[in-house]
Amino acid sequence: MKVCIIGSSGHVGYAIEGIKAAKDCEIVGVAPGSEGESMDKVLSMLRDNFKGKIYDDYELMLKELSPDIAVVACHFGDIAKVNIKALSYGCHVFTEKPLATTLEDLEKLRKVYENSGKRLCAMFGIRYRPWFFTAHKLVESGAIGEIRLINTQKSYKLGKREEFYKQRESYGGTIPWVGIHAIDWIYWFTHKKFKSIYATHSRKYNKDHGDLEVTALCHFTLEDEIFASLSIDYLRPENAPSHDDDRMRIVGTKGVIDVIFNKVFLINKDYSGQEIPLEDGGNIFVDFLKDIKGEGSCMVTAEESFYATEIALKARESADENKIIYLP
Amino acid sequence: MKVCIIGSSGHVGYAIEGIKAAKDCEIVGVAPGSEGESMDKVLSMLRDNFKGKIYDDYELMLKELSPDIAVVACHFGDIAKVNIKALSYGCHVFTEKPLATTLEDLEKLRKVYENSGKRLCAMFGIRYRPWFFTAHKLVESGAIGEIRLINTQKSYKLGKREEFYKQRESYGGTIPWVGIHAIDWIYWFTHKKFKSIYATHSRKYNKDHGDLEVTALCHFTLEDEIFASLSIDYLRPENAPSHDDDRMRIVGTKGVIDVIFNKVFLINKDYSGQEIPLEDGGNIFVDFLKDIKGEGSCMVTAEESFYATEIALKARESADENKIIYLP
Repeated sequence: MKVCIIGSSGHVGYAIEGIKAAKDCEIVGVAPGSEGESMDKVLSMLRDNFKGKIYDDYELMLKELSPDIAVVACHFGDIAKVNIKALSYGCHVFTEKPLATTLEDLEKLRKVYENSGKRLCAMFGIRYRPWFFTAHKLVESGAIGEIRLINTQKSYKLGKREEFYKQRESYGGTIPWVGIHAIDWIYWFTHKKFKSIYATHSRKYNKDHGDLEVTALCHFTLEDEIFASLSIDYLRPENAPSHDDDRMRIVGTKGVIDVIFNKVFLINKDYSGQEIPLEDGGNIFVDFLKDIKGEGSCMVTAEESFYATEIALKARESADENKIIYLP
Repeated sequence: MKVCIIGSSGHVGYAIEGIKAAKDCEIVGVAPGSEGESMDKVLSMLRDNFKGKIYDDYELMLKELSPDIAVVACHFGDIAKVNIKALSYGCHVFTEKPLATTLEDLEKLRKVYENSGKRLCAMFGIRYRPWFFTAHKLVESGAIGEIRLINTQKSYKLGKREEFYKQRESYGGTIPWVGIHAIDWIYWFTHKKFKSIYATHSRKYNKDHGDLEVTALCHFTLEDEIFASLSIDYLRPENAPSHDDDRMRIVGTKGVIDVIFNKVFLINKDYSGQEIPLEDGGNIFVDFLKDIKGEGSCMVTAEESFYATEIALKARESADENKIIYLP
């Protein structure tokens, strides 16, 4: 299967690792997806394994190489546009999130996707981390009964970000870029629709990162009066032992699960807070390939990819306009 | 110093332990503060040490015994009324929270308090737990710079609650009863005023506990765009190793502190997430006695006791009426 990589600003690593594991896939071309985007990061990840072509113009690449799959990881403001192109050239799309940075672009992409007959999967690779994967299996098995409350956390080191992070237009905002993962977890765990959103965000103390919001907080109400919180920050100190500190606490009618410190803890009638052995979640790109080949379904669906993006953009709107947003 | 105990529905243990430690205090009388309230819990805690009188009518007790201090821990809906009586009879007041269950009663109490010349302290005893006390000292010492984001959690076992918990009128609501502690922490740690509040709560799955809300979520914005979340639930499983699971995460411009599992963890330029040795926080009632005797100031002030109550009642209003509440 022929794969092209467009852009090097997102988590192309998921695809590169997956392609190594898959063996029946080959990267035939790479090109930037945004103006001024360097492909050095991708090329250094590929090293000597790369036998394909390097393009300046991704559209020319798609035309000339007709890849089966486009991996899209350009500046976030260009993702929707590049995805639309890739689908139009008949590619399946493995794409960085958010799928779009405006609701208008999201609708355009949705229409093109729905008429394409192709597969699409957003890079919600965190689902495959053993701690989240294990927690999800526990919930699906009924370990905590009905979910009533979820607390999620995304905390990153800021470091020194590239220029495109500093403008809302190219970056999209911290809720859509960072927070969307937790929005995905909430929907993935509950299978419930979001009914209302209230969010706030702040650019204060962002160390000369322009528009980039360095803290954010979201409050979601799902169907059946299920509540979910999402705390986001870029204030994780440089001295911390990891780049990110992802957490999730799921409170059900019959138990509580904590995903914290990359571990899973369970309290229910059989457990009093013990650590649960972790299962291997696999690789998201390999999972997506399975879907394309008709050998199974990918854990991350296109529907979920669109929905999490929509919720993230509406949460950003809530924070921008300081209002509660209601959903049908 | 003469102490009377009114009611046995709250955390009278703080006072009973403090009195044991203080030695110059004596419990001279006990009486219920609410209709139908049994004093058995208090009497069994006091056992043979109790040399005072048992009354049916707390007002008669206050009149006859003229105590220096009234410990008020009746049904929550009666707290304001009993506090007003106690102040009127010239007592200092050590009282269960919330100080009132309606904003009207809170204002009445505030006026009586301000004209009384007496001391008042709400039972925010959790501040004195070593993990919260230690975290607070770290923040005050500048260990994490300026606070930008706080996540708090109150999780309790529901068990089988007394009848008065089942009516809003006598119980007051879960945000004012349980959530108020975390509201207190937020104000205590930041010294910042609350500018807006959005909250939700739900009675679903409350196991026949009438009006009692079993889950709640609050979203606060403080001065300077500081955000704070508060997650509350009564869904802690019976099998959990403790009644409560209190947590707090404080994110600053120079570090992050976690108060979790009754421990404190710090990341800043000197620490990469290590556990910090705990300091002894002492006893809240002993601290209050020190204040009364003019030997120092109590860590919990009357101003804070009133303010946390006001915020908790406004958060309940936000949840009841599904609206953002703005504060001046």
